[in-house]
This record gives sequence, C-alpha cells and structure tokens, in this order.
Amino acid sequence: MTAEFVQDYETFTLGDFPLQHGDTLEDAKLAYKTFGELNADKSNAIVYPTWYSGFHWDNEWLVGEDMALDPRKYFIIIPNMLGNGLSSSPSNTPPPHDKANFPKVTFYDQVEAQHKLVAEHFGIETLQLVTGWSMGAGQTYQWAVSYPDMVQRAAPFCGSSKTSEHNFVFLEGVKAALTGGDSFKGGFYDVKPEDNLRRTGRVYAGWGFSQAFFWDRVYTDMGHSYRLGIDLAFPTLEDYLVQYWEGHFLDRRDVNDLLSMLWTWQYGDIGQTPGFDGDHVKALQSIKAKLIAMPALKDLYFPPEDEVYASQYIPDGEVRVIPGVWGHFAGSGDSAVDRKWIDDVIRELLAG
Amino acid sequence: MTAEFVQDYETFTLGDFPLQHGDTLEDAKLAYKTFGELNADKSNAIVYPTWYSGFHWDNEWLVGEDMALDPRKYFIIIPNMLGNGLSSSPSNTPPPHDKANFPKVTFYDQVEAQHKLVAEHFGIETLQLVTGWSMGAGQTYQWAVSYPDMVQRAAPFCGSSKTSEHNFVFLEGVKAALTGGDSFKGGFYDVKPEDNLRRTGRVYAGWGFSQAFFWDRVYTDMGHSYRLGIDLAFPTLEDYLVQYWEGHFLDRRDVNDLLSMLWTWQYGDIGQTPGFDGDHVKALQSIKAKLIAMPALKDLYFPPEDEVYASQYIPDGEVRVIPGVWGHFAGSGDSAVDRKWIDDVIRELLAG
Repeated sequence: MTAEFVQDYETFTLGDFPLQHGDTLEDAKLAYKTFGELNADKSNAIVYPTWYSGFHWDNEWLVGEDMALDPRKYFIIIPNMLGNGLSSSPSNTPPPHDKANFPKVTFYDQVEAQHKLVAEHFGIETLQLVTGWSMGAGQTYQWAVSYPDMVQRAAPFCGSSKTSEHNFVFLEGVKAALTGGDSFKGGFYDVKPEDNLRRTGRVYAGWGFSQAFFWDRVYTDMGHSYRLGIDLAFPTLEDYLVQYWEGHFLDRRDVNDLLSMLWTWQYGDIGQTPGFDGDHVKALQSIKAKLIAMPALKDLYFPPEDEVYASQYIPDGEVRVIPGVWGHFAGSGDSAVDRKWIDDVIRELLAG
Repeated sequence: MTAEFVQDYETFTLGDFPLQHGDTLEDAKLAYKTFGELNADKSNAIVYPTWYSGFHWDNEWLVGEDMALDPRKYFIIIPNMLGNGLSSSPSNTPPPHDKANFPKVTFYDQVEAQHKLVAEHFGIETLQLVTGWSMGAGQTYQWAVSYPDMVQRAAPFCGSSKTSEHNFVFLEGVKAALTGGDSFKGGFYDVKPEDNLRRTGRVYAGWGFSQAFFWDRVYTDMGHSYRLGIDLAFPTLEDYLVQYWEGHFLDRRDVNDLLSMLWTWQYGDIGQTPGFDGDHVKALQSIKAKLIAMPALKDLYFPPEDEVYASQYIPDGEVRVIPGVWGHFAGSGDSAVDRKWIDDVIRELLAG
C-alpha cells in the first residue's frame, strides 16, 4: 500500500493581481480550504489565515465540532498566504516572477487577495470573526483595518499589527540562515539548499519557545499536538532540534517561499494601508471590530507589552495574555493546554 | 603617520597543558594584562577573565582610578581565555592542534591555566575578587568552585555557573551561522570566511539586547561606550546591524576561535569540576566566597531567574538584578549607566 497525497484544498484564480509595491502578479492563485456550509444569508463566515511557513492543514487544530470554530455553525475559510507554497509563491510561479524574482507581497496584498475570494467568489459581506496565529494575527489586524465594516470580531494571537524592530532583527538572523552558501545560488537553485533549511531550524529553535520551556525540559513530554495529530516527546535536546526544528523546515518548505513570507512579516504595518500614510496609531483607531489580542506571556519576538501598547488605541480592543512557558508556540496548536485556552477566548468572543 | 599596533600584554608559558577531556595542549600560552602593583604580602590581587569573543582590552572599562577596580589599590589580572585568539587558540596553534583540530577546552581548564599564572608565576595565594561578564562570569564561578579557599569574593555578572539548555540552543543557532558554506571548508580555511562572520553578527543581533532596547530605539543614541572609548549612535537599524554586529565579528575574530569558545560555553557546568560527579548543586554549595551575582533584568540568554535558582545553594550568595533595557549587553561596558551600577556593587562587595 502506498501513501497517497490527496489534494484537500481548492484554488481560487485571482488573475493578474496588482501588488501594493507596484508589480502585478500574473495569473495569481489562492489556495484555500473551507469547513462547514455558508448559510443562506451568508452571515456565518470566519476567515482564519495561515502563519509563517504554515499550510492550511497546520491551522486545522482550532476547527472542530467540539471547538468554538464549529463547522456545524460556521463557514470557516482558511486561505493560504501568498508565498507559502500552495498559493502563488516563488516555488510555483513561472518566469518572469519565479524563484528570487517573485515580487514583494505585503499584509495589505494578502488581505486584498483573500477579500477577492471572500467577497467575489463567495459573495460574503460580513465576517463573524477573523483569527490567526503569528503572521495569521498580522493578517487578522490587516483585515480589521482594510475592511472595518466587514469584520465583526477579531482574535489575533501571538502576533502584532506592526512588526517591531526587535522582531525585524530576529528575522534578519533567520534571513541570514536561509540565504548564503553556494547551494543557494542567490535564490536561483534547482536543488533545494537543505543545509540552509537545517541552519534555519537551528537558528529558529532558540526563539520559538521560552527560556523556561527548556528549563522545565518540556520538549521531553510536550503532550498531544492537535496540529500534527501525534504526541510530541523528544528524549534528548538534539532529537528535539533535529526532528522538531530541522524536520519542520525540511518538510516541503522552500527557501525562496520562506524568504517571501519573511519579507511580508518584516515589513508588516497596518499603518501602510492606503489612506493612513504610515500612521499606525490612526490605523488602530479605525478598527471597528471587537478585538481580543492574545499574546503569549513569554513570547520572545511578540512580547505582550507590544500588544498592550497597541490595544490602547483600538476602540473595542482588549488583551488577554496566554499564560505558561510555551512562548510564541503557545499558538502553534502543539500545546493542548493553550489550544483550550485560546478556544475558550474565541468562544467567549463569538458569543458576545 | 601610520597607526601602529603596540602589543600591550604579556604571555605566560603554560607548557604542555593537560586538558580535562584528555588532550594535552603542547606549548600552551596564556596572554594577560595586569594593572597596578602586587603588594608585598600578595594580598591585593583580583582576577577578571574575558568573555565570548572578547580580548583583554574589552575588559578595561571596569578598571580605573575612579573605579572599584582601582589599580592604585589592587593588582588586577585580566587573563585572555584559551581560544580567544591571544591565548592559545585554533588560530595561533601549530599542527597537530591547529584550526578545527584544536582540542575542547572547559571552564575548568580555563581556570587551571589562569591558576598557574596566578599561583605559580605571581605566587598569589589569595584573591580579593574574581569578576567577569558573561563567559567571564562562568570563569568566575569556576574559580570559586576550583579554589574555594583562595577566592574571597566573586562578582559574576550576566552569566551562570551552568549553561542552561535554552542558552545551549541559542548557541546552536550561533554555531550554525559560524559553520557551513564552501568558504568554511570544515574549519580548514586559509581565507577567513567573512560571510559566516557577517551571518553570525546578524544571528546574534536579536539576542544581545532586549526587545525593549529596540522598542525604545536606544541604538540611535547608546551614549558613551567606555569599552570602545567612543560614543555609539547609529542613525538606522541597518547601520547598527552592520557597524555594531557585523563589525564586531569581522574585527580580528576568527571562526575557529569563536567555535572553540562556543564549545566551552555550551558545556559550561561547575558540576563537572573533578570531585563533584556532575552535581551542580553540590558544586554551588562548596563555594566559600561572598558572591554577588548580577544578572540583567531583560537578558535573553542568561535570565535572572536562573541566577536566583543557583543563588539559593551558595552559602554566602546574593543576587542583584541590573535594571534597564540593555539585556545581556548591560555588562558589555557599552552602557555607561550599567557600568556605574556594576561598579557600585563591586565597590560594596570589596568593602565588605
């Protein structure tokens, strides 16, 4: 018996898609997956964008009949980010926008593409909720700013509306790991530069979880990952580094795709939405959604204080800090405890 | 007029120096610099070891007539770590222990080498103080465990007696940045792999200072660096990354030397001192020095809680947390405010 990869998603044709920085992405595609049924008055939709290096299946842990994102009640759309390898990306775009020639994509562009799917394809005019982890949180904020009358509720977790300078510098390290070396060939490789992907895993490993996560050696018994559908337990630190981190980046991730998403992340700022002239505070003030931000207590690159700062400008904004030692990866779906915590908050938000 | 490099240090010959892991380093040398005069009964000595990638001149900011480490009163010895490029190191050792063949050196070895200098060369039997930043703090702890009757006082700042697992993982990222690529040639390069050094600077940049340091954009006006003897101010983040971080690693640093010190750091543990059988707590309990640990509030790889944990086992141990946003680099000598703070604590410790 041979394992078979069944395509479990659909593709929406964006056509020639103009980008904020001036390029046009020809024959652009948005890969997405939906759960549940859109109701008759199209009032039960939720958008739940993907994160850095994530695919739609990496988001599914927050969807289920026992969850707030209940497909019996809601029509849940998970759009894959442009650049993630399923939607239009360096790795799947023909010349002239192939590989390192892929144009720069902003959070604004991501949401414009998703809005086309949501509004033009599905005819949806209101969203009960937009939610997402990390860069998914960045897209959540962007939705709330780009379409303030459409987004009723927003639940960004472990992310921000503007990439902080420290976060930018952390990403410079990731970028340095991804690039360079002879196998990279300036992005025009034919053979995947595996060394760069392994190196990226090593560089990322110190950032994803907190200092206390390692102090407590949680990696030896991480419990059930609802994202991966397996129990995670690594006997040694080296097992954890190789299997969890290097393995993640080696598993169908492409270096140019990762660099494309990294650029989107580094330059994330809702203040760059047309009409706001770079004014981040003004953009926050324009949000009409009831918004609960959920930073994680020990997140090393999206620290809670940044979200507390932003929240003061959001008219109906609130911050709930995810407790515990998982740091950024509290929102990954690999922590069963944090999954419940996040689900509880989303349930409360949807009820209000 | 040509700038001339004047050798401002002395060299002590260790001879054939046995290492804890079994190798012998032939014709080993210890480079050191002293300040002040050893008094008649040899009772006024202080040892102040160097840090990761640091040379003795990077330590001098804490020494001065207006400082606790007053050369009019004390005889201050700054020994360069084995591996730092001045003492025996991959970059200056002939075959068979040249380059990537340089043997593994532990903190225990470092202190054995320094003890030879202090006891055999200078005939010193008591130390008023051992102090140091980062890996210098690691050597400080090692001194207090290896020679408990000799070390009267200890002031480790921004370091630890055992490298935590998170710290180890952070260093895996640094190691991944240092190694790899065709120019590295597995450590047997003839031409310095500059790309690796630049990449290391980028990877390190997110770790050295705190998130809040960047939030406050302190890099635009860091004030006077007593270490470098200049005011530090970088108009842009990129200037800071290139000049402060890449510049640091490109300035006379050697990749194999950095890898040698990195190994020492990763495997740092006073519990590995002979006689303690790996028992870190027992080693802490053996310390007789009056010890004040000074972790920095927002240090990302030596968090204060680790020092609070260790301190409970040190009979005369105490923790004072360096406030502010400089993170690990509070102890670098680049922060004038933190320099005064550290100096004040050392002054108090020396008075008691």
